[in-house]
Amino acid sequence: MILDWKIVAEKIYNELKNEILPLEKKPKLWAILIWNNSSSIRYIKQKQKWAEYIWVDFELLTFDENISQISLLEEINKLNIDENISWFIIQLPLPKHINEQEIINSINPEKDVDWFHPINQWKIVIWDETWLKPCTPAWVIELCKFYNIDLIWKNIVIIWRSNIVWKPLANMLINMQATLTICNSKTKNIDFYTKNADIIITAMWSPEFLTTEKINKDTVVIDVWFSVIDWKIYWDCDFENIIQNWNKITPVPGWVWALTVAMLMKNTLKAYKK
Amino acid sequence: MILDWKIVAEKIYNELKNEILPLEKKPKLWAILIWNNSSSIRYIKQKQKWAEYIWVDFELLTFDENISQISLLEEINKLNIDENISWFIIQLPLPKHINEQEIINSINPEKDVDWFHPINQWKIVIWDETWLKPCTPAWVIELCKFYNIDLIWKNIVIIWRSNIVWKPLANMLINMQATLTICNSKTKNIDFYTKNADIIITAMWSPEFLTTEKINKDTVVIDVWFSVIDWKIYWDCDFENIIQNWNKITPVPGWVWALTVAMLMKNTLKAYKK
Repeated sequence: MILDWKIVAEKIYNELKNEILPLEKKPKLWAILIWNNSSSIRYIKQKQKWAEYIWVDFELLTFDENISQISLLEEINKLNIDENISWFIIQLPLPKHINEQEIINSINPEKDVDWFHPINQWKIVIWDETWLKPCTPAWVIELCKFYNIDLIWKNIVIIWRSNIVWKPLANMLINMQATLTICNSKTKNIDFYTKNADIIITAMWSPEFLTTEKINKDTVVIDVWFSVIDWKIYWDCDFENIIQNWNKITPVPGWVWALTVAMLMKNTLKAYKK
Repeated sequence: MILDWKIVAEKIYNELKNEILPLEKKPKLWAILIWNNSSSIRYIKQKQKWAEYIWVDFELLTFDENISQISLLEEINKLNIDENISWFIIQLPLPKHINEQEIINSINPEKDVDWFHPINQWKIVIWDETWLKPCTPAWVIELCKFYNIDLIWKNIVIIWRSNIVWKPLANMLINMQATLTICNSKTKNIDFYTKNADIIITAMWSPEFLTTEKINKDTVVIDVWFSVIDWKIYWDCDFENIIQNWNKITPVPGWVWALTVAMLMKNTLKAYKK
């Protein structure tokens, strides 16, 4: 069975739209874009499109890609102290000459609707529930909720390589009382863990590494990232064979941007209502 | 075999002392104590004793236990901006009327030698190595290093209940490429994980829960917390039987304060040298 994030995203956008339409003053989202690469531009256009679809005002603030670290910090500070601006996002990645972490640290945590600031991220580690949630981990949990896949008290395995998106997710799952095993490419006996898993979340960038032999028939497989080899996209799991095996699995291929952005819009409305 | 933290602590204190003795200007540590409970006082006295033993100047700043949140924030701000004060610690727990997390958040992260501030803690999550390390997780890693217990690529199990000390440790172990399973009291088949573990770190507060049947003979057991029932102290592991089984195990009973404080002094010297 396919866990179709498109259906989940559509449901969320419609719910948000129904809630926002009757509001006299619409919520507004400010976004900083450093005009540097096509993937940032494509991503920010997605955000704009979906914001406008659900009647969220979207204001894009663009800066030249040669902007210095100091000038960018000054621009962020202006937003931080401007009482008319309630929250804003900064589209990542930033140009190479910019220290990205320092920029993230400079955002006023109370205006950080992406929930990227270390103070906000650390709240995820130490608390069961936070006010807003980082968008990528949030969609994994939302997707499971939609399909009635219980996470509490389940054996969950995360297989990761180098990106950090899974880390807040890992901490959120621990707080949900999951028994969580975090495996990596050096794990001695990975089958031991994957065969015992109720749910596997993989972000290993290892083409079709997760085969039917490594899982059992009840395992839910959530494949959050992919590799590109010779212009062809590969996922971590052997989708074609696993889907025939009746496991629940996320659709491959597929871009989950729409669902990630839906989580951002959820945060925006939550922040607006506060 | 007993993993004796006393030997490790002694070694570290002697190393620090040898390094500090020849220094013309000694490192100094400032500590805030809210005069409220006997365990805080006992703990801060340990810190003072060990600081003085290794020739670190120790200055205790005490405040009345009725100090208001705002006054305490003002006092911390004075330390934050005072150029003569390089770093300081705040002895926890704080009185009940004080919002502890807000106080921790108010410390200048660059003067936070306990490494408690969310910005510092989050660095542990996203980075492999941080400049300073939080003291409790640091001693677990130091103890293993002393006894040549390799953590990298090992199967490690953490069994926790409600405290948060283990969370930075979990994140540090993940960054060390351990395959880490985090179990809790609701884990469906905990033996499955403990029997496959190279190392078990337990902070469950469940008296003698971890018996010889639940582990194998090569498993290292690190028992970091205890329960008190009818004035008697119980550890999570059945120490008497496990030790006869030739497993490597932390000494029970035993207070690891001296080793935790050794880690604080290590941070202080590191900060001083910077």
